Amino acid sequence: MIRFDNDYTEGAHPLILEELMKTNTEQLPGYGEDDYCQLAASYIKQHCQNEDVDVHFMVGGTQVNTTIISAVLRPHQAVLSADSGHIAVHETGAIESTGHKVLELTNTEGKISAEQIQAYVENHWDDPTHEHIPQPKLVYLSQPTELGTLYTKAELQAIRTVCLDNNLYLMVDGARLGYGMAAENNDVTLHDLTQLTDMFYIGGTKVGAMFGEAIVISHDALKEDFRYIMKQRGGMLAKGRFLGLQFKVLFEDHLYFDISDHAIQMAELLLEAFKEKGIRLQYDSPTNQIFPILPDDKIKSLHENYSFYVWEDAGDGQKAVRICTSWSTKEEDIKQFIADL
Amino acid sequence: MIRFDNDYTEGAHPLILEELMKTNTEQLPGYGEDDYCQLAASYIKQHCQNEDVDVHFMVGGTQVNTTIISAVLRPHQAVLSADSGHIAVHETGAIESTGHKVLELTNTEGKISAEQIQAYVENHWDDPTHEHIPQPKLVYLSQPTELGTLYTKAELQAIRTVCLDNNLYLMVDGARLGYGMAAENNDVTLHDLTQLTDMFYIGGTKVGAMFGEAIVISHDALKEDFRYIMKQRGGMLAKGRFLGLQFKVLFEDHLYFDISDHAIQMAELLLEAFKEKGIRLQYDSPTNQIFPILPDDKIKSLHENYSFYVWEDAGDGQKAVRICTSWSTKEEDIKQFIADL
Amino acid sequence: MIRFDNDYTEGAHPLILEELMKTNTEQLPGYGEDDYCQLAASYIKQHCQNEDVDVHFMVGGTQVNTTIISAVLRPHQAVLSADSGHIAVHETGAIESTGHKVLELTNTEGKISAEQIQAYVENHWDDPTHEHIPQPKLVYLSQPTELGTLYTKAELQAIRTVCLDNNLYLMVDGARLGYGMAAENNDVTLHDLTQLTDMFYIGGTKVGAMFGEAIVISHDALKEDFRYIMKQRGGMLAKGRFLGLQFKVLFEDHLYFDISDHAIQMAELLLEAFKEKGIRLQYDSPTNQIFPILPDDKIKSLHENYSFYVWEDAGDGQKAVRICTSWSTKEEDIKQFIADL
Amino acid sequence: MIRFDNDYTEGAHPLILEELMKTNTEQLPGYGEDDYCQLAASYIKQHCQNEDVDVHFMVGGTQVNTTIISAVLRPHQAVLSADSGHIAVHETGAIESTGHKVLELTNTEGKISAEQIQAYVENHWDDPTHEHIPQPKLVYLSQPTELGTLYTKAELQAIRTVCLDNNLYLMVDGARLGYGMAAENNDVTLHDLTQLTDMFYIGGTKVGAMFGEAIVISHDALKEDFRYIMKQRGGMLAKGRFLGLQFKVLFEDHLYFDISDHAIQMAELLLEAFKEKGIRLQYDSPTNQIFPILPDDKIKSLHENYSFYVWEDAGDGQKAVRICTSWSTKEEDIKQFIADL
Repeated sequence: MIRFDNDYTEGAHPLILEELMKTNTEQLPGYGEDDYCQLAASYIKQHCQNEDVDVHFMVGGTQVNTTIISAVLRPHQAVLSADSGHIAVHETGAIESTGHKVLELTNTEGKISAEQIQAYVENHWDDPTHEHIPQPKLVYLSQPTELGTLYTKAELQAIRTVCLDNNLYLMVDGARLGYGMAAENNDVTLHDLTQLTDMFYIGGTKVGAMFGEAIVISHDALKEDFRYIMKQRGGMLAKGRFLGLQFKVLFEDHLYFDISDHAIQMAELLLEAFKEKGIRLQYDSPTNQIFPILPDDKIKSLHENYSFYVWEDAGDGQKAVRICTSWSTKEEDIKQFIADL
Repeated sequence: MIRFDNDYTEGAHPLILEELMKTNTEQLPGYGEDDYCQLAASYIKQHCQNEDVDVHFMVGGTQVNTTIISAVLRPHQAVLSADSGHIAVHETGAIESTGHKVLELTNTEGKISAEQIQAYVENHWDDPTHEHIPQPKLVYLSQPTELGTLYTKAELQAIRTVCLDNNLYLMVDGARLGYGMAAENNDVTLHDLTQLTDMFYIGGTKVGAMFGEAIVISHDALKEDFRYIMKQRGGMLAKGRFLGLQFKVLFEDHLYFDISDHAIQMAELLLEAFKEKGIRLQYDSPTNQIFPILPDDKIKSLHENYSFYVWEDAGDGQKAVRICTSWSTKEEDIKQFIADL
Repeated sequence: MIRFDNDYTEGAHPLILEELMKTNTEQLPGYGEDDYCQLAASYIKQHCQNEDVDVHFMVGGTQVNTTIISAVLRPHQAVLSADSGHIAVHETGAIESTGHKVLELTNTEGKISAEQIQAYVENHWDDPTHEHIPQPKLVYLSQPTELGTLYTKAELQAIRTVCLDNNLYLMVDGARLGYGMAAENNDVTLHDLTQLTDMFYIGGTKVGAMFGEAIVISHDALKEDFRYIMKQRGGMLAKGRFLGLQFKVLFEDHLYFDISDHAIQMAELLLEAFKEKGIRLQYDSPTNQIFPILPDDKIKSLHENYSFYVWEDAGDGQKAVRICTSWSTKEEDIKQFIADL
Repeated sequence: MIRFDNDYTEGAHPLILEELMKTNTEQLPGYGEDDYCQLAASYIKQHCQNEDVDVHFMVGGTQVNTTIISAVLRPHQAVLSADSGHIAVHETGAIESTGHKVLELTNTEGKISAEQIQAYVENHWDDPTHEHIPQPKLVYLSQPTELGTLYTKAELQAIRTVCLDNNLYLMVDGARLGYGMAAENNDVTLHDLTQLTDMFYIGGTKVGAMFGEAIVISHDALKEDFRYIMKQRGGMLAKGRFLGLQFKVLFEDHLYFDISDHAIQMAELLLEAFKEKGIRLQYDSPTNQIFPILPDDKIKSLHENYSFYVWEDAGDGQKAVRICTSWSTKEEDIKQFIADL
């Protein structure tokens, strides 16, 4: 069975494991106060071309989302998200468990627009009963989105403008950020993200790490006491070195970007093959998740050797499925899959 | 600098890293649904001599405590803990962040007694205004305690009886459980814990793992939907394999117990040396944390080469300090330290 | 200015104020433990023809909803509601503030159906990732709904069956219950509600009381410790007598039902007039909220002397508005309004 | 049975009921947006000699405390309180239910000192693991305290200075504020409270109202969005007029102060009698709660005709009891009680 069902089917990049082996007997302080965390943070700041950000490391995405959102909002405030957003759909109500409502906007291929946000916020403040409704205060985006699509720099700038005009914070969930940055037409850099958002995070779990997400905070007021809230949410790893070491390896040079590129190349092989065979795509994703529409019987036969998600019905006895490539996808597996199509 | 300040100063046991290397390219399902998690759970059940428990793996202790406590209690219910308990002292109010008060009982060398619990509960129900006071419903113990001491089997049985008599749940935080079980006079087995508690956990982070705690649930009603709450608390690791693999290595044979024994042997070397030199101990700990009382100038000179915590003032220009040994403590470091005393 | 904008524009029914005057100097215990609360509860049980329910009194609806819902659900569980439901729309995220997500089902004239609930629940459990999604556990209905419509007994029975089949609790928000019971075709009695729901409440605030809602709990397990949670939510009135006294007056004989009838008669006068004048209705409400569709200029001129809500756009330069009658509506005001139409 | 067990045994001051009768048929907007709430707020501002405060009305004390505290604190922050404080002892963990720990300082006759607060805060920031401990951010005092004692202006100024030095907010629970202000040696005015605290509240429930507390906010940043949080906590009364009307009556002239004076005069009659009879007092309270020490058999015989709380054991077969006077205490009842002593 070859797995294309997600981008965390394998362990970690070999260079990461090598680094863990090499440093294993070093005695280090805990809770992220070791030198490797410092070093990793400084590498990330360099890649961001921005020394004024704070960088923290946590283990997983749901943890990061609940920590950031509960750190940012007052009790009556809520977060705006695409209705397809991870916090809206797949975190067992983790955001609500911190007391905050997720206000869902209808997504278009996984994205929401500056206009939608502006309309929602205007509507809120125009409503004479607005004190009876959660107050929108934070916008949550994913880059890339749950459907593999990307915000352009212009789109992010427009959203940022709406946020500044309306006193909203803006955060970006970058659980798959590497794959977004490696996509051919992507025009959003890490530096841009430090300018256009109040905080974002760089996903490691899905991009070659054993686990770990690197949070980058630009908004000064939001930097305050962030570690307290990490600890309270159970998100301050005792052996924080393992987070520092992994991100050190990924960002010391270009490993994070190189392995992301690989995943995109593998996805492009698939896209070409689909095009050639006249297989339509449900979503126009330029990243590592692709959504071909296949007939039911073809899906059934492929499932004998390959794992992937059936995403949604596409009519006429066909379904959109999701194929994930990743840093660890083997070209030979892709070729075999194409041959078996 | 040789570190005795805690038991998580080094990486992971070499056999664990070896296993991670060996299995790294295997493609596995996520979220703890892989075979290694299954296998690790089955090994732990065998060591517990109890097939009727549920076993789950999470990354860290604060996470486990908040997940268990919020899974068990209704909103008006509270958890009884020693005032020295980790949840009372060192989790940034994580339990309160889930809505529950920690009711603190005065500790005696880190422990609380059946009598204290009985008295508290009686007092609650006798109070005519008890509906205005959080209802005690869960007892939280640590084995060993924050001061390295141990509950005897008889003490646990007495506490269990009080709990059953008063409809209280009982949980045991075993972040350092291995070191407790390796202590010379310990008479509490894993099997006992499955009989005497509703749930407990077996700490990995401080006993040779990179990270990870294994939760063992005996109470049937509390097994229900536990994974939902793990996910909601951000505690369901995407690459759950890394938890499964580590606990597989630790519990496949006796590694967990063997490396715990080593830490105790190292502690005993220290205890002997203290005895010989007439150095008194602040707490009578038979486990891997020991609390010698040293003069201030001696502490100062030792701190040049060794890190350890100054725990509390002991009068007369002396202080109790805490020395931690662990699975990774080198005998030569202990000997050097004794020589430098 | 004559107010038709809601059903709480005036004070309290004169008989209630009279009773307050009469009993004012009596010295009584606090927190709902006085004889008037007992008496009011016993009258309500009689009207319910059910002695096995628990009755509690709280001040307002949002308070009741948060208290009930947080009393009933475990952390990962969620409440199903019409997307027009009060908890979904107008409580500033109060339910989310207790940690629980409101799962919204599309309403049809304010109602949801047994089929919708069944489909949602089936879908949840069929989803292989259901542990990553809040678990539906409680169904919240309003009788009458926010749009003035009513569930028939048959509809409630169908919903109850779905709930029992799927281990869901069922609650009914009866903030305007009196007006529902007074509606011509209503076939749901208080007794039915004790049989068909796990708990419901009888609204006082909108039906002649100064404030207050009477909660009726039939499900035995949910009765336990309810007063603790009332207190924790700030909902246990110190001078509980004022709740007891009001509900004593309302339920000693038939006052609650008589004054509800009056509101319905006033609404029917309006409905007749609208019919006569060919004014269409946006929703087919048989209760005290009615939704005529009026041209913009007519609304403007009426607003000079009457207050009422513009509910939503109805196209063609027309809008649906909401007119509320109540226990205190004067027939002469209705006639004047009809004349001014 | 004559009740001295608390200060909310009777209904409301007759002038309040009279006002309710007089205004009952007026049609008014809901949720505190009526003219009476405005008027009451303006009277309170006049009594405060401070136009720059915000005034809000809520129904009860637990509600106010949870609303203020959750409005003020970020998730990792905690409130400092005397261990005898109402939020620490008698609110069923309501503060914890909003996610915040109550940090208890040992009380001296119900009070805490500037020195205690300073020491706690210093200790927090000096602790190298302070990120693992809830951060003290708000000081909660009661004036008068649960034991009837009062802070002097000098004591409040000292506490205020510590708060400003350490970036702490300061709130005062004035559930019995009237009785404090009427005490003979009190030197703290409402104006002082607007200068020395960030917010405080003026209790109505225990001082002649049916219910209701008036919140006065001086700190600008804390004024923002307060009504949202009131609504979310279920504390925005639909018929807010009843809050406005009551506080209008109490503060239009001097009623609030006059009826408080009466309670103090009644308490002084008792104090004199105790002195004459050589009965010692457990606490030196100058307000409406007094704590004589009585022999067990005397308590027993008095309990036949009078209700009051047995507060705590005082040794030698004696107990301290609590006698509450109030706005409604009858002089003849006090005299009878003294005769029966």
